[in-house]
Amino acid sequence: MPYVNIQVTREGVTREQKAELIAGVTALLVRVLHKNPATTHVVIDEIDLDNWGVGGLPVAEFRKRQP
Amino acid sequence: MPYVNIQVTREGVTREQKAELIAGVTALLVRVLHKNPATTHVVIDEIDLDNWGVGGLPVAEFRKRQP
Amino acid sequence: MPYVNIQVTREGVTREQKAELIAGVTALLVRVLHKNPATTHVVIDEIDLDNWGVGGLPVAEFRKRQP
Amino acid sequence: MPYVNIQVTREGVTREQKAELIAGVTALLVRVLHKNPATTHVVIDEIDLDNWGVGGLPVAEFRKRQP
Amino acid sequence: MPYVNIQVTREGVTREQKAELIAGVTALLVRVLHKNPATTHVVIDEIDLDNWGVGGLPVAEFRKRQP
Amino acid sequence: MPYVNIQVTREGVTREQKAELIAGVTALLVRVLHKNPATTHVVIDEIDLDNWGVGGLPVAEFRKRQP
Repeated sequence: MPYVNIQVTREGVTREQKAELIAGVTALLVRVLHKNPATTHVVIDEIDLDNWGVGGLPVAEFRKRQP
Repeated sequence: MPYVNIQVTREGVTREQKAELIAGVTALLVRVLHKNPATTHVVIDEIDLDNWGVGGLPVAEFRKRQP
Repeated sequence: MPYVNIQVTREGVTREQKAELIAGVTALLVRVLHKNPATTHVVIDEIDLDNWGVGGLPVAEFRKRQP
Repeated sequence: MPYVNIQVTREGVTREQKAELIAGVTALLVRVLHKNPATTHVVIDEIDLDNWGVGGLPVAEFRKRQP
Repeated sequence: MPYVNIQVTREGVTREQKAELIAGVTALLVRVLHKNPATTHVVIDEIDLDNWGVGGLPVAEFRKRQP
Repeated sequence: MPYVNIQVTREGVTREQKAELIAGVTALLVRVLHKNPATTHVVIDEIDLDNWGVGGLPVAEFRKRQP
């Protein structure tokens, strides 16, 4: 009965990419842990860039400073 | 001090239904665990259909294939 | 396809109380949103008292100061 | 490798306030636990007022009844 | 900067299986969304059987009633 | 009414450090967003090293490979 929550920045993830993530994570749980896909739920959260921080900075700012 | 997070697909949940969920979950925690409602928080997340997967498929696709 | 996460302090919640919470939340989602119980998942997290804070204090400390 | 999720009601939190939260939480984890800021992630979720409940009521209703 | 939370029932998941889940989810995010693995975090939560409900029942009870 | 979830690796975080995190996060939300501390909840999750991955590897493995 797995539940998987995937959080990514909101940057134009397409419906096809979301379907690929759902299929891929479910297949992984079936393969590694022999889980039943029918009770495997995947929820994707898309997070606005202003709302994600890393290195103490909002993501956009953080990226600018990377070499 | 309970915190409850309810995740449902975004399919026209009304303000009244949300208030019913909040009231119902809080009453349940008061009844079963004698929690103080004043410190009981309920957060409802509505998830776009494309972002929820079950059975390895986005929900809309999954439902179509159900008998 | 709801997913519900219930977080409570770890203070001797019994197996029977957990089963009541699971049954109660699921019944609520069936009644209010007409959800299918077979795809409704409930996960209970029990949190050590030292790990839960309210009012800027760990719960045990917070409770002592309540009138 | 901390991950911090901050959930607040959606009430006009500005980009500057979000940056302050991100900077402040990261600095706290560096100071208290000596964590590496480069692997410290902060995600802010803004929750619609209708979707947050406390005291068994939606937040707006709850606030009206406070003395 | 993805963050992935995998919740499974606590039923003897081995260290090797956990490493496979971490590697597999990260590879999926790199392949589908071109994410940087160095900022991709995966957190696995193992949930006691009594604390996971589906179909309104604790998991162990639910499984017994499956045909 | 904020709710904050802090996830860190389980590596001997002391009760005093937890209290500092709770106090610090609460003070930050009061200062930046003028939140009421009495309705500000902080939950700390300590995650076993085997259960946290970054860079596609369990944390312990990831750290060994850092220069």
